[in-house]
Parts: sequence; C-alpha cells; structure tokens
Amino acid sequence: MDFGIAAFPQKSVQDKINSYRKRYDAHYSLIPPHITLRDKFELKEDQLEDAVLCLEKIAKETSCFKLNFNKVSHFYPTSNTIYLAIDNPTPLIELHDRIDQEFGSVQKPYEYQPHLTIGQKMEEQELHDVYGRLRMNSFDLETEITRFHLMYQLENEAWNIYQTFLLSR
Amino acid sequence: MDFGIAAFPQKSVQDKINSYRKRYDAHYSLIPPHITLRDKFELKEDQLEDAVLCLEKIAKETSCFKLNFNKVSHFYPTSNTIYLAIDNPTPLIELHDRIDQEFGSVQKPYEYQPHLTIGQKMEEQELHDVYGRLRMNSFDLETEITRFHLMYQLENEAWNIYQTFLLSR
Repeated sequence: MDFGIAAFPQKSVQDKINSYRKRYDAHYSLIPPHITLRDKFELKEDQLEDAVLCLEKIAKETSCFKLNFNKVSHFYPTSNTIYLAIDNPTPLIELHDRIDQEFGSVQKPYEYQPHLTIGQKMEEQELHDVYGRLRMNSFDLETEITRFHLMYQLENEAWNIYQTFLLSR
Repeated sequence: MDFGIAAFPQKSVQDKINSYRKRYDAHYSLIPPHITLRDKFELKEDQLEDAVLCLEKIAKETSCFKLNFNKVSHFYPTSNTIYLAIDNPTPLIELHDRIDQEFGSVQKPYEYQPHLTIGQKMEEQELHDVYGRLRMNSFDLETEITRFHLMYQLENEAWNIYQTFLLSR
C-alpha cells in the first residue's frame, strides 16, 4: 500500500489556499492543503505496526511549532509548481530528516523544501502569469503545527488518513 | 467549526465502493467512503480539547470489531440514498449511542442506522434503476474497525481529519 506523511495548516489557512488550488492545483480534490513531510512510499501490511510505533516515538520527541507564510514562490523549471513559502522551515526540515533517518530516504531529484502548494502541473505560461500576479499579494498567514498524519492512497488517487500523531506540548 | 465523526472501512472496501460512488454520490470528492458515527455538529475552539479527551476515553472503552457488508439497501423515500447495509451493526450503534450520551443527540428526523453510502441525492428514477441492478449483485465484504476519526469541514465542504482515536485491542 502507498503511504505518505503530511501536516495540515489550520483551517483558515486551508480555506484561503483552497481558493487558489481550486483553479491551479490538479490535486485539489484528492487531498486538502498540506505540507508534505514524506513523499509517497510503500509499506507492506506487516511493516505497518512498526512504522506506527516509530512515528509515535518521533512525534513524542518533537515539540509543537509555529509556521509563517508570507511569500509566494515556485519550483520552475524543476517542476511547474507555485507554492506559499515557509519563513521558518527549520522544524519541518528537522522532522522530515528525523523521519528519513528511520524510514530511509525517498529517492528525489531535489532537496527537501517544505512548502504549501497553491498550483501544480500548470502550463508554463499560466505558471508565469499566476506567479506574476500572486507575488504582488501580501500573505500574512500563521499556523501552529501540533500533529502530523500517516496517510494512504486509494485507487482513485485520493488520500485518506490512517493515523494522527500528536507532537509534544 | 463544524465537526463530524466517522469510521473508514479498510482500503479494499473503499476502492470497491468508490467505483459506484464516483457515479452516484454527490459527496464523492468531499470525503472517502465512510460510516458516519456522528453527523455534523458544532464545536467552539474552547470546547475542542474536552471533546478530544472524551473521545479518547470512549475509544479506550470500546474494543475493535468486525463488520460484514453483503446487501444493498436504500433510505427512499426518507432520502434518495443507496447504501451497503451492515449485517452486524450492534457495535456501531453502541459506539454511536455512547458518543451521543457524551455530546448530546444531533437532531435527526430518523433513527441512527449505520451504513456505507453508495449513492445519495439521486434522482428518483435513477435510484430505482441503480437499486434494481445492484440488489442482484452479491457483495461479500468484510472490514475490521480499529479506529474512528474526528473530522472538520472546510469551506469547500470537503472534510479533513483532526484526530484519530484507536479502539482497544
């Protein structure tokens, strides 16, 4: 089964971002706005219990943290993705690296850069147009990350939550 | 904020049901296939922590259980919904009643009848056609319920998971 690990910003931030994702993100109806902590990876049924124990341990050893978003950025030409950049990404990078340590790295052509996707798989011209417009906007969004989620992917490519892991207070 | 409580059947059952929901369920892209344990209800921000503690307690006091689905049924004329009926619904009814005891009843015009929706908000003629066809099919699906989830609804009406509650083993 295919799994992924993500954190969701608070509802008000999700609602704000969805107003853009609806138009620009091909994954809009497959998953709510999220920050990926671990890309899609496979777990056999008999590996799931250990994976859960391991994520419980990681969550317990990680404190809740705050994130600020105030700038639109893009991954072009690596990928045609526009996203809200995270001002203070260190706690996310640490959490990502901690998970990678335990589960091994997911082979990726680029370094992990935590982000909140606004649009992806966009036509090149649209990406430049939308980025040109959005970079003028001022975003001043904050969210507290108190938990992350182990998710599994259904046949229709939508994601569902397997389990929530609460960070330490 | 609007919340709901649901349990998800295992992935293979969700995939099977989604093949019907895609055509017949207006909520297909808003939430994966689920069994509602508590309909939409409001929680203020300062009520959330107590609600979570209460659900943790209920989960701890409830054992995992198995469910079997093998018959299509409908709620017509109460509502134009077709669903997979649950052969042995008692543990779901007990869990629903236990949650109601703590949170109060959500006012509903009909008694709680746990089910796995295949189609809803259907035209009357389509409902009869689809039911006529599906009732001939033999379903023999089983799932273990090991957890339930507190969910919140976003502005676009999609549901996201706030927290998972694990039943006792």
